Amino acid sequence: MSNASIDNGTSDAKAVNAKGIDTRLWSNKARHLSPYVPGEQPQHENLCKLNTNENPFPPSSKVGEAINAVLAQQADELRLYPAPESDDLRAALAHLHGIDSNQVFVGNGSDEVLALVFASFFMKEQPLLAPDISYSFYPVYAQTFGVDLVQIPLEKDFSVNPDAYSQPCSGIIIANPNAPTGLLMSLADIRKLALKHSDAVIVIDEAYIDFARADEMSTEKEVSAVSLINEFDNILVTQTFSKSRSLAGLRVGMAFANASLIEALTRMKNSFNSYPLDKLAQAGATASVLDAPYFEKICQQVIDLREALTTELTSLGYQVLPSDANFVFARPKDGDASAVASALREQGIIVRHFNQPRIQEYLRITVGTQAQHERLIDALKAL
Amino acid sequence: MSNASIDNGTSDAKAVNAKGIDTRLWSNKARHLSPYVPGEQPQHENLCKLNTNENPFPPSSKVGEAINAVLAQQADELRLYPAPESDDLRAALAHLHGIDSNQVFVGNGSDEVLALVFASFFMKEQPLLAPDISYSFYPVYAQTFGVDLVQIPLEKDFSVNPDAYSQPCSGIIIANPNAPTGLLMSLADIRKLALKHSDAVIVIDEAYIDFARADEMSTEKEVSAVSLINEFDNILVTQTFSKSRSLAGLRVGMAFANASLIEALTRMKNSFNSYPLDKLAQAGATASVLDAPYFEKICQQVIDLREALTTELTSLGYQVLPSDANFVFARPKDGDASAVASALREQGIIVRHFNQPRIQEYLRITVGTQAQHERLIDALKAL
Repeated sequence: MSNASIDNGTSDAKAVNAKGIDTRLWSNKARHLSPYVPGEQPQHENLCKLNTNENPFPPSSKVGEAINAVLAQQADELRLYPAPESDDLRAALAHLHGIDSNQVFVGNGSDEVLALVFASFFMKEQPLLAPDISYSFYPVYAQTFGVDLVQIPLEKDFSVNPDAYSQPCSGIIIANPNAPTGLLMSLADIRKLALKHSDAVIVIDEAYIDFARADEMSTEKEVSAVSLINEFDNILVTQTFSKSRSLAGLRVGMAFANASLIEALTRMKNSFNSYPLDKLAQAGATASVLDAPYFEKICQQVIDLREALTTELTSLGYQVLPSDANFVFARPKDGDASAVASALREQGIIVRHFNQPRIQEYLRITVGTQAQHERLIDALKAL
Repeated sequence: MSNASIDNGTSDAKAVNAKGIDTRLWSNKARHLSPYVPGEQPQHENLCKLNTNENPFPPSSKVGEAINAVLAQQADELRLYPAPESDDLRAALAHLHGIDSNQVFVGNGSDEVLALVFASFFMKEQPLLAPDISYSFYPVYAQTFGVDLVQIPLEKDFSVNPDAYSQPCSGIIIANPNAPTGLLMSLADIRKLALKHSDAVIVIDEAYIDFARADEMSTEKEVSAVSLINEFDNILVTQTFSKSRSLAGLRVGMAFANASLIEALTRMKNSFNSYPLDKLAQAGATASVLDAPYFEKICQQVIDLREALTTELTSLGYQVLPSDANFVFARPKDGDASAVASALREQGIIVRHFNQPRIQEYLRITVGTQAQHERLIDALKAL
């Protein structure tokens, strides 16, 4: 990406990188980045978009109503700065989880929250540990903030083995359920990590946790590590409105932890950008939190659809990992996932294929509507 | 703020800072920040809030209409991720300025844009130069990104002297009109800086430029440095929707520069947070850009109010700097600006006083409505 011959900020009229872009005036930081590449967002009609883990159901109608109310009653107030710390939204989230507002942080999507987490807790001499297969933004943040990231291989069955996280570290970050596998780690294993690394910050990225359910055989009733933050001062949990709350378009994410970790995030935020959440996003997100019945209903519907999709794919010979997320990770019988992805694309069905070691034989398929599943299964049968 | 005895990421159960906050698990970066402190946003009724340079007029009615249309016709689409590069908004801004879309960057308020600018262009060995009196977020960004900031004193009359910017540097950042002085620098002086420092990025932060007018005596018709970006590959201009477009509550800012500088910002953004602008903010901001007549009308009204306020304050014995912004910088006859600010506060009128060298005898007063000005002037007369 960067031109290896350019290594400092001095002038070089010929400083162009491999893409032919003039990087003469860029910082080395900018030259050496490998930015995150989100799943594509093609705009054409009649596409069956099962590649970016968006919710197939619309957000709560209360969201639009709350935003309409702001526009109708206080449109004038858009001229004023929003509440910098999103107090109402934080209070609603605190109430939902039975914690204090000072244990809640919100930001412009959980991606922004994660960026601030890296700057606040992982810019240290010791490395950060993360699974080798996980959310692909983690290595990007590590590069952005100069964090040494050590990737710990998942087990052969793609599960996270807490005993593999034994080396001294500044922190550990684990997506739970993990992406793109969909596998859930138990709270018992998370406790084990937090106890073993009491001087490190254990970040549990729960983007998909609302689609997870406790194993019926387990004594644990909870699946979210938010239930651990009063017990462990080194556990920080991130979540998002983009998946279970159907609000990817509104850009709201959050973190839960003890007050001193939240204070670090707040200070970091106020050294980047004081007002990350606009007035309408704050109002809409708050309304979503307050509409618990709708939230629970659509989460259950997504779970039911996921289980049905798993059954159908299995009956077509796919190996499907047991998912606790709103996607499934599935391997076609012959392992040629790339060919399946291409063939589906020709039918206007977009799924995600990761061309990287260990997982190149799998497809990540977002849970969609019943109709989208029928279209997908029909297309797979016809291949 | 930080506890001097703690200098690395190792364990220290007693690690608490001066405020009694446990910083044991924080990065040094987090420990050593001095976050930006925005002007206060008190919420009580009947307050005359002239402290944060918000526009006294509401945004264009097209903004609410556009957002309502999204909610009415595509509420379902809030479940989907927004356009990551805000294509429609960038196209509208490009059209407005007669430039290409690849010369336009947008972000979550100009504060976020500025943060990315610091990371992209100023993280170099040579220092960044900025006026000693300017936007107080600049030193915060410098600290956040480890940038060596050298402050160049303004002249005695608070003007920027381009000849004072003579040392080698990674870049120069100047708010124009400057805050909190309101003084405008000429394009001739900006050209001089860009020519002298062809290997540095010259950032002109035009948060207030839409309230500036070319001097009738000048041969220059333009005041905005956007008119220079095709001529100079090292000039980058930031602007915001928070002031002239009455949309502080929507969080939209932008940068204009040649395509290679914009590419650096885009890559940096995609290494922090890929989707900083939500769907509603994109729609509302685009509608604002398209409503040129309303925009021009309220800018002119603010300018007229500013000139009237300047006349009234002058007649009360205040020394008022010639402002090209939506605020005035004014010194009471006895120089005891702090006492005036306190007395006004008791009347429910909030203005901004900066308790720092050179400017502690001045008040920054945001241009308000006619009624707010009358209330202010009455209160000042009664002091």
